Amino acid sequence: MNDQMDGMKILAEGYVQLVESWGSDQAIIEAARMSTNKGFEGWGDDDEPGDERLLGYLYRNKHATPFEMAGVIVEVKAPLFVFREWHRHRTQSYNEMSARYVPMPNENYVPTIERIVEGAKTTGNKQAAGTAQLDQAAAEQWLERLEKFYADAEQVYADGLACGVPKELARLAVPVARYSRMRASANLRNWLAFLTLRQSPKAQWEIRQYADAVGRIIASKFPRTWELYQEGSDTKTHQTSEKS
Amino acid sequence: MNDQMDGMKILAEGYVQLVESWGSDQAIIEAARMSTNKGFEGWGDDDEPGDERLLGYLYRNKHATPFEMAGVIVEVKAPLFVFREWHRHRTQSYNEMSARYVPMPNENYVPTIERIVEGAKTTGNKQAAGTAQLDQAAAEQWLERLEKFYADAEQVYADGLACGVPKELARLAVPVARYSRMRASANLRNWLAFLTLRQSPKAQWEIRQYADAVGRIIASKFPRTWELYQEGSDTKTHQTSEKS
Amino acid sequence: MNDQMDGMKILAEGYVQLVESWGSDQAIIEAARMSTNKGFEGWGDDDEPGDERLLGYLYRNKHATPFEMAGVIVEVKAPLFVFREWHRHRTQSYNEMSARYVPMPNENYVPTIERIVEGAKTTGNKQAAGTAQLDQAAAEQWLERLEKFYADAEQVYADGLACGVPKELARLAVPVARYSRMRASANLRNWLAFLTLRQSPKAQWEIRQYADAVGRIIASKFPRTWELYQEGSDTKTHQTSEKS
Amino acid sequence: MNDQMDGMKILAEGYVQLVESWGSDQAIIEAARMSTNKGFEGWGDDDEPGDERLLGYLYRNKHATPFEMAGVIVEVKAPLFVFREWHRHRTQSYNEMSARYVPMPNENYVPTIERIVEGAKTTGNKQAAGTAQLDQAAAEQWLERLEKFYADAEQVYADGLACGVPKELARLAVPVARYSRMRASANLRNWLAFLTLRQSPKAQWEIRQYADAVGRIIASKFPRTWELYQEGSDTKTHQTSEKS
Repeated sequence: MNDQMDGMKILAEGYVQLVESWGSDQAIIEAARMSTNKGFEGWGDDDEPGDERLLGYLYRNKHATPFEMAGVIVEVKAPLFVFREWHRHRTQSYNEMSARYVPMPNENYVPTIERIVEGAKTTGNKQAAGTAQLDQAAAEQWLERLEKFYADAEQVYADGLACGVPKELARLAVPVARYSRMRASANLRNWLAFLTLRQSPKAQWEIRQYADAVGRIIASKFPRTWELYQEGSDTKTHQTSEKS
Repeated sequence: MNDQMDGMKILAEGYVQLVESWGSDQAIIEAARMSTNKGFEGWGDDDEPGDERLLGYLYRNKHATPFEMAGVIVEVKAPLFVFREWHRHRTQSYNEMSARYVPMPNENYVPTIERIVEGAKTTGNKQAAGTAQLDQAAAEQWLERLEKFYADAEQVYADGLACGVPKELARLAVPVARYSRMRASANLRNWLAFLTLRQSPKAQWEIRQYADAVGRIIASKFPRTWELYQEGSDTKTHQTSEKS
Repeated sequence: MNDQMDGMKILAEGYVQLVESWGSDQAIIEAARMSTNKGFEGWGDDDEPGDERLLGYLYRNKHATPFEMAGVIVEVKAPLFVFREWHRHRTQSYNEMSARYVPMPNENYVPTIERIVEGAKTTGNKQAAGTAQLDQAAAEQWLERLEKFYADAEQVYADGLACGVPKELARLAVPVARYSRMRASANLRNWLAFLTLRQSPKAQWEIRQYADAVGRIIASKFPRTWELYQEGSDTKTHQTSEKS
Repeated sequence: MNDQMDGMKILAEGYVQLVESWGSDQAIIEAARMSTNKGFEGWGDDDEPGDERLLGYLYRNKHATPFEMAGVIVEVKAPLFVFREWHRHRTQSYNEMSARYVPMPNENYVPTIERIVEGAKTTGNKQAAGTAQLDQAAAEQWLERLEKFYADAEQVYADGLACGVPKELARLAVPVARYSRMRASANLRNWLAFLTLRQSPKAQWEIRQYADAVGRIIASKFPRTWELYQEGSDTKTHQTSEKS
């Protein structure tokens, strides 16, 4: 059921994988043409444009419902804190691994030194006054402690499970950095709303990597709609919001 | 894009046509298995049942989200009063012909004599006291008047359009019996909720014909889920609700 | 439960009436401040602005979820063709009169001559080539025919009901101009989305009258949010979309 | 804005607090009566029942839309793993504390010994074969380790923040046991769906405590609807589903 899209590695151990898509740029036109009791009339070219003009008109004028007649299902492996942000999008359907039913594998997100140092610069203005300027050595040291902490967390978790603590309570020791897995389904309209928020420079870098991967899937399946989305993303409209 | 399903005539001039489906009984299992970090393990047979047991468990225990990982898009031609009921289902996506943009073709739903006489019997208990018992002759006479009325409506509508009344106002003369067209998309969970209400004996006969046609499409694409739905429909649970 | 807002007459026989509202400009701030673990800090004035700055920031940057923490329920009497447009907004809750249960009262929308003549001018570019230019006399003549048509429709409807045709079929003769009644509930975010589409110059004049009335209710209950909405409505963003 | 409902302590450090409600049992009747073009006619008593009969009919026959004409907003403090389950309910509106903007206070859920030992018994059948039977001493020992682990987590988190690691990355060390805060809004129909799943014996004990508190709020604001919900909860229907 998967195709060339599988294997898009995100962060160190995560991924985004196409499960299935439906609809097409053409199907969007067909749906929109219901309003005038007509159908798809064909794409044109630079000399003689065809239905790409209607597609552009629909997109730019926010006639959004035809873009609900297509969609994508993906499988995602990502840290819990990424899923926490993702699940705020209430128009998607989700099925996720449950720590009540299975022990969560011992995989935790470890950011790179560069990510931490770079992140400290770009979010620096949000740091409390009097906070130290992060240098590379401090970042390395903290990262080392973080990894040791992950090992401790796993120890508490695994020992709890081993001695009979219920899975649903043993997980109290799991950090939000731990990887989980899910399938997510949405129509194209709602995926584009997700991308608008999660590809924004204001979104956290980690979820942006996932959003970019979803974007590549959408680009491959709906190339003409993707072009319109990108054109819109260059404008300010697409870079300001936060949560759906 | 259409397949063997096209051409399902409903009422005299309406239809339901499959545009596209996505997902499958197997994909529902795959999605559900995310919770235990596993995948599809295969269907079994009477001697050794396989994942049909999980499918049955999910359906009967109302674990509904995996059934959101599949769906169907249909094209429908139906009278306005049917669309009025249909559009109360707010989890579907719609694109419909607009009388603001195109004149609506002169096609109006004419019930059969049998439908009227039969309907008078079954809804008789809701008739006001003192109402006459409808006989065949009266039904025939009323039907004749109705058809003449449709012709008058078209005359007013067409003359308005011809003399320059805006389409959006000329339509004031259009009766709710007039046929319109739309595409409708929903995931399987929401189609089954639609069918539960619209295949119910309490639903109006006309929309039940459309619901039955949607049911045949779902049966052909998701045969195992359909079997579970039908099993549930035999119980009282499925025959009591009215509107989503 | 109603207040000063009742009695907003719309069209000749329709109305919009406030049933109830919840939340407030302040409650929106309180909800937004959850993100920083704080609360409402007070409105300011021109010299020293207070939380109106946060409200403006939220609105302008499309941080929409705090605006879901307030809402309005209205009761509406409007023609069926207006309800047909209204019900495309799938984030509202509706309870409407049903012609299956009660005969619809004989009230039908009759546009004014001015509305028809003016409408013919502004939508003229959408008229088919060769269509006559509508003059006042033709409009008057058509309107006269329309009213006679409404009387005929009622005759067919009432006679059907009287002789025993089931209500759900007798209504086939009802034109889309007939008035119905409903209650509609939505949160503030979704009401503003409704208004953006239905107060737009592209929306049909009739539903715009209803949208304006809803706007007056929102202005009275959420004056600071309303100011921000209006500021946004002056920009192009708010005047381009069509359907939610 | 709060009333007697504030101060419902849940777990050790959490709470559920009423922010606001709208609608009433009577308003549900008024909305339902739109369908027959009537209004509220009054409650009755045992001798002569009034509109409580209609309310019961609506509830038992799943005429759900009138129950969307009322609602409740609550403020909740709960551990992250509870919010993870809560946020799967996509028909609610949420505003939650964000660890990207503020450091999360050092409060973590510590279950009681009784909860762990009892939980081990009731979920025992789900434990892997060969798992030890949990005894009180082992539970105490594990709990001690968990609390020490929480202290370590806070150390890593606080030190990261102090040396300049961005908040959004320092939080990687936060366990899912940590408390967060949010406001949640939903209409009554959707709160009852939430309660059906989260008051079920199959739901995790911790979220059940929160669901019970929401239930007490609903009981105080909508006593007649609550009675109907409870009557339904005694039947099997209400005890089988898992996720909305």
